[in-house]
Amino acid sequence: MSTLGKLLQLTTFGESHGPAIGGVLSGCPSNIVLDFDYIQHQLDRRKPGQSAIVTQRKELDQVQFLSGIFQGKTTGAPIGFLIPNNDQKSKDYDHLKDVYRPSHADFTYHKKYQHRDYRGGGRASARETANWVVAGGIAKHIIPEISIRSYVSAVGTIRTEKSFQELDLQKIDHSIVRCPDDDIADQMIEYIKQIRKEGDTIGGEITCVVENVPVGLGEPIFDKLHARLAHAMMSINAVKGFEYGVGFDAITKKGSQINDLFLPNMRTKTNFSGGIQGGISNGMPIYFKIAFKPVATLMQVQETIDQNNELTTFIGKGRHDPCVVSRAVPIVDAMTALVLADMTLYNRSQERIN
Amino acid sequence: MSTLGKLLQLTTFGESHGPAIGGVLSGCPSNIVLDFDYIQHQLDRRKPGQSAIVTQRKELDQVQFLSGIFQGKTTGAPIGFLIPNNDQKSKDYDHLKDVYRPSHADFTYHKKYQHRDYRGGGRASARETANWVVAGGIAKHIIPEISIRSYVSAVGTIRTEKSFQELDLQKIDHSIVRCPDDDIADQMIEYIKQIRKEGDTIGGEITCVVENVPVGLGEPIFDKLHARLAHAMMSINAVKGFEYGVGFDAITKKGSQINDLFLPNMRTKTNFSGGIQGGISNGMPIYFKIAFKPVATLMQVQETIDQNNELTTFIGKGRHDPCVVSRAVPIVDAMTALVLADMTLYNRSQERIN
Amino acid sequence: MSTLGKLLQLTTFGESHGPAIGGVLSGCPSNIVLDFDYIQHQLDRRKPGQSAIVTQRKELDQVQFLSGIFQGKTTGAPIGFLIPNNDQKSKDYDHLKDVYRPSHADFTYHKKYQHRDYRGGGRASARETANWVVAGGIAKHIIPEISIRSYVSAVGTIRTEKSFQELDLQKIDHSIVRCPDDDIADQMIEYIKQIRKEGDTIGGEITCVVENVPVGLGEPIFDKLHARLAHAMMSINAVKGFEYGVGFDAITKKGSQINDLFLPNMRTKTNFSGGIQGGISNGMPIYFKIAFKPVATLMQVQETIDQNNELTTFIGKGRHDPCVVSRAVPIVDAMTALVLADMTLYNRSQERIN
Amino acid sequence: MSTLGKLLQLTTFGESHGPAIGGVLSGCPSNIVLDFDYIQHQLDRRKPGQSAIVTQRKELDQVQFLSGIFQGKTTGAPIGFLIPNNDQKSKDYDHLKDVYRPSHADFTYHKKYQHRDYRGGGRASARETANWVVAGGIAKHIIPEISIRSYVSAVGTIRTEKSFQELDLQKIDHSIVRCPDDDIADQMIEYIKQIRKEGDTIGGEITCVVENVPVGLGEPIFDKLHARLAHAMMSINAVKGFEYGVGFDAITKKGSQINDLFLPNMRTKTNFSGGIQGGISNGMPIYFKIAFKPVATLMQVQETIDQNNELTTFIGKGRHDPCVVSRAVPIVDAMTALVLADMTLYNRSQERIN
Repeated sequence: MSTLGKLLQLTTFGESHGPAIGGVLSGCPSNIVLDFDYIQHQLDRRKPGQSAIVTQRKELDQVQFLSGIFQGKTTGAPIGFLIPNNDQKSKDYDHLKDVYRPSHADFTYHKKYQHRDYRGGGRASARETANWVVAGGIAKHIIPEISIRSYVSAVGTIRTEKSFQELDLQKIDHSIVRCPDDDIADQMIEYIKQIRKEGDTIGGEITCVVENVPVGLGEPIFDKLHARLAHAMMSINAVKGFEYGVGFDAITKKGSQINDLFLPNMRTKTNFSGGIQGGISNGMPIYFKIAFKPVATLMQVQETIDQNNELTTFIGKGRHDPCVVSRAVPIVDAMTALVLADMTLYNRSQERIN
Repeated sequence: MSTLGKLLQLTTFGESHGPAIGGVLSGCPSNIVLDFDYIQHQLDRRKPGQSAIVTQRKELDQVQFLSGIFQGKTTGAPIGFLIPNNDQKSKDYDHLKDVYRPSHADFTYHKKYQHRDYRGGGRASARETANWVVAGGIAKHIIPEISIRSYVSAVGTIRTEKSFQELDLQKIDHSIVRCPDDDIADQMIEYIKQIRKEGDTIGGEITCVVENVPVGLGEPIFDKLHARLAHAMMSINAVKGFEYGVGFDAITKKGSQINDLFLPNMRTKTNFSGGIQGGISNGMPIYFKIAFKPVATLMQVQETIDQNNELTTFIGKGRHDPCVVSRAVPIVDAMTALVLADMTLYNRSQERIN
Repeated sequence: MSTLGKLLQLTTFGESHGPAIGGVLSGCPSNIVLDFDYIQHQLDRRKPGQSAIVTQRKELDQVQFLSGIFQGKTTGAPIGFLIPNNDQKSKDYDHLKDVYRPSHADFTYHKKYQHRDYRGGGRASARETANWVVAGGIAKHIIPEISIRSYVSAVGTIRTEKSFQELDLQKIDHSIVRCPDDDIADQMIEYIKQIRKEGDTIGGEITCVVENVPVGLGEPIFDKLHARLAHAMMSINAVKGFEYGVGFDAITKKGSQINDLFLPNMRTKTNFSGGIQGGISNGMPIYFKIAFKPVATLMQVQETIDQNNELTTFIGKGRHDPCVVSRAVPIVDAMTALVLADMTLYNRSQERIN
Repeated sequence: MSTLGKLLQLTTFGESHGPAIGGVLSGCPSNIVLDFDYIQHQLDRRKPGQSAIVTQRKELDQVQFLSGIFQGKTTGAPIGFLIPNNDQKSKDYDHLKDVYRPSHADFTYHKKYQHRDYRGGGRASARETANWVVAGGIAKHIIPEISIRSYVSAVGTIRTEKSFQELDLQKIDHSIVRCPDDDIADQMIEYIKQIRKEGDTIGGEITCVVENVPVGLGEPIFDKLHARLAHAMMSINAVKGFEYGVGFDAITKKGSQINDLFLPNMRTKTNFSGGIQGGISNGMPIYFKIAFKPVATLMQVQETIDQNNELTTFIGKGRHDPCVVSRAVPIVDAMTALVLADMTLYNRSQERIN
């Protein structure tokens, strides 16, 4: 149950405080020339310490490929990779050895496994997502024609009111918060800094836009494209909600308001469907939104209990993200690429659209 | 890719206008005494024609079990079952033979498979969900102690403002719309009747509440409990969004506002987490919400194109749901049961909490 | 665990004495024109009562397709099918209700499931293989160019000494025993009749020859073509051994004796490898042999125990096969087709040889 | 398709001439105290250079665990591990850069992947089996009560005539060839030395004996215990055949000769079934035999072709095994442990025999 995908399969391992995390990506076709700079760039977009509004923890996050690549090309064999953990100061975590941190996974892991790996989040740490960024970076090579672009659309109550069509998605990385709406981006950055000063954290939203998608990705019934995307997005740490197309607004809409009428060019007049009908891409842009909760670790005193079921208090130390969304952007891109590449390979198996 | 689950596996088949739909449920432990009335009752809650606010199409929806059961008990062998299609008047569909109905799956299926099964929705029909209700009804027997109750929390702009704790969930089936808030239920019913008169359709929301869950269901990384639930719910026809716990409201919240502090009884003071932390149940109630779009078939003229890419118009005939949520309630219950039973079996394999 | 294959997936259900057996074949590409006569013909080759040397039990073995086929072509949706059990006289089995038949699965099933379905073999019955013949018959359409031909190469000590190259494989069905070596076939038939008169049963061997295989089927490591074939063949009731190419004779051979030297036409001088190298087909004929034990049900008194662990005796009644190999020939063909079609689809997913 | 097992899942990667091979074992229950010496000991039994009758290539074969283990115990998280390749002299392989070695996988890999990793066997190298030995060594901890013992039963025509019951299986490692029949072992060793002098190689046979197996391991239909074992064994490099219980001898036997009669102690008088009935263990010893072909690399000139389809010759260089069976013994043990542990976890999921 540590494997994602059916044809392009990612299997991962690693804890935040072991020697390394890593994974195996199997099912990648042979003879793909890999752009290693692109992959490392995605890792850099995720890594801690990259800007003033993220955790200042230091990790090089340099991926080492161990197999499946020869002379710069994929061989068809599984691609094994490692990301060493450089900043694994286990001592940092002695203060939480016996404590169940509020809204963390300490309690559930301990009860489930009857074993406590108290060194940071252990397997529950979002450090795992670095593995996904590596694999997604490779997956993107399988679907070079498809454009996948995520951006931060809200931080707390600060939200861009522009739709993705109104934004210049080339500008996502122009701000450290990764919102392509300049004024809003500045407000978000200031707000996050303020939140950090309070020792608090704040939620946010990411919008993902997928364009130039061929018709026919996604399988009926249990592998609907949006269901696979929802699964992938809900797998990301701190995500509490997923919607695509018209999303939760659908609740108050009439069919006559949001049905997408077909035009003779096989496109639709509107796109409330979000590019997916019956679980299958229809060639229109796919877009979806993901809600992130605020990080659970605060620089404030919180009440909680310890392993002996006694009341105690906990306060975070040092280096934590006041808001995760800017670092989560490449993770969303990566998970989207993994899902789309997997469905693409499946279509090929059926000799459908490539 | 027609299979759901890893240990308790449901594989289904069938189109709305073939002789029957059906499925195979494998991985069900032996010696479970099945309550066939309960299973049929769930089917009856889903079936067409059950009330004044749903489609008046007639289907008996009587399940026939073909294997895996002997003397009223599961044998451990796969349970094969059939639901005959009684009301398969293919002629009804001659008018849509060449048309791509707006916001339906006609277009995407045709392009994907290069083949048109124009008899109703074919495999894309929500008739498939009757299979899920059968399987979920069996799955519920594996987790008898867990309470799963879904209800309609919104139809259009009519919404119960009460939280699930404030509602009497025994009363869900007291109204035909399956909202346990009496006044609101009446308003919903009137509104749906009004919508039907307009030849229109309307969206809605279902809230699902799962109680008495043991600690420890759900697997880290790619089988997080909420990710599996999101996948299952997004598989239901017409669903556009999923959120659990604080959901999309998390975007605007600070950590200090929504962290759930542990109490010495191992429960939490609040439950913004929605009963799941790190992808694993923590023993608090699990709750999640699902957004349904309005049904795409209207009794109104809509513009669209035909298979030759020519503009044409389409108008629905006869018997369609003005709003799907009341019939979707048992489907949500069933899919939830399938996910929870599967995760329960997995825990047993690891000799964890049963 | 009732599913075979990764892309072309067969899931089955049914017991020998329920109303029907059946299955779901998913992952079959769309637009394949099915030859229903071919499929039924394979079923007829497997069915009881077909000749003087097999059980005289009566089963029509007529398959009913319930989905996934429209206007004679596959639609891409899962193909559900049923084979009704006509001859399910449960009373026939009252004499074995409490007895563990020697070398049958009664004992292991009872202990495993803590439940006794004493109506014949239940899920353990070779009746299940009729499902496989249906699915294999469909699978064969995915790989029309590949020739798969199995024949009986030994019954007891009567064995054709000719290699498959020396035999005319068009003549397999010329004899009821399905050995294409005429004289040997006659001896086999006489021998089986003799065995039947003794109330005894006898083992046998099937050889399968696969020709016109493209280079490149089979995946390294855990999906080697011969490992997948071994798994499929060992799944057939009564099979005790599998070998391919030089097989068990390899034990006594030197490398210099059995290495297959490549010729400039990319074929090999000899074919001790059996058409597979490194788990991947090399374009030469694939051939393998399967050992079947004698049927366990004898028309002779045997000592055994009952469910109370008391000594008793058992004697078979009525209608059983004295030797299974002639009826197993289409089963071997079918399982081979399922494996090869599955690997073919996988290759397509990687855009390899089609 | 680089994953073995359903609950206990092994995913591997690596080529003989990359920096390392390795894998991820997921699904291992938590709180198992690992005996690292035992695991390393199994690796040492497999490693090159261990005796006078195996290749003198040097590999330390020291496993590094990267995750899933804390304070000597499994945590329930996936266990990532690496085995560095110390002796990766790629230059050694320049002579085979363009050549398709006879009865190797060079040709099939090249055609399949359209890419040539000419550095030794690449992914086809039996070096991969070191990963299996690590994983099998861990798996053995899940089934501590089950005894798994493999030994060399034949090398060429030299064969022990004793059944496994007549041999002292404690003595397997008393000889470097791992045959517990002293005189025969000496003859085997002399014969292998002789073969090596000839620059030739020789086949052999391994017998595996599994004792103290609970009743009930193995699943009907497509996960029969012997089918899973066959699949695992046929995955081992150079294996050409598998048989269990009476095996190929069944062909010539009558039912009255080899039916296993039950005794009142729930054991059987004889064990021609090989401890498995209907695909499920019956509590009697499981035993099976595996045929290995001679190693394909000879120290003799062989004719072959190169990538341009031109005739050429090839002669092996340096350090190869004249016979693989003594090194394959721990591989057979490991694969057996992986299969049995996986089936054990599945049984637990169904709350059956543990």
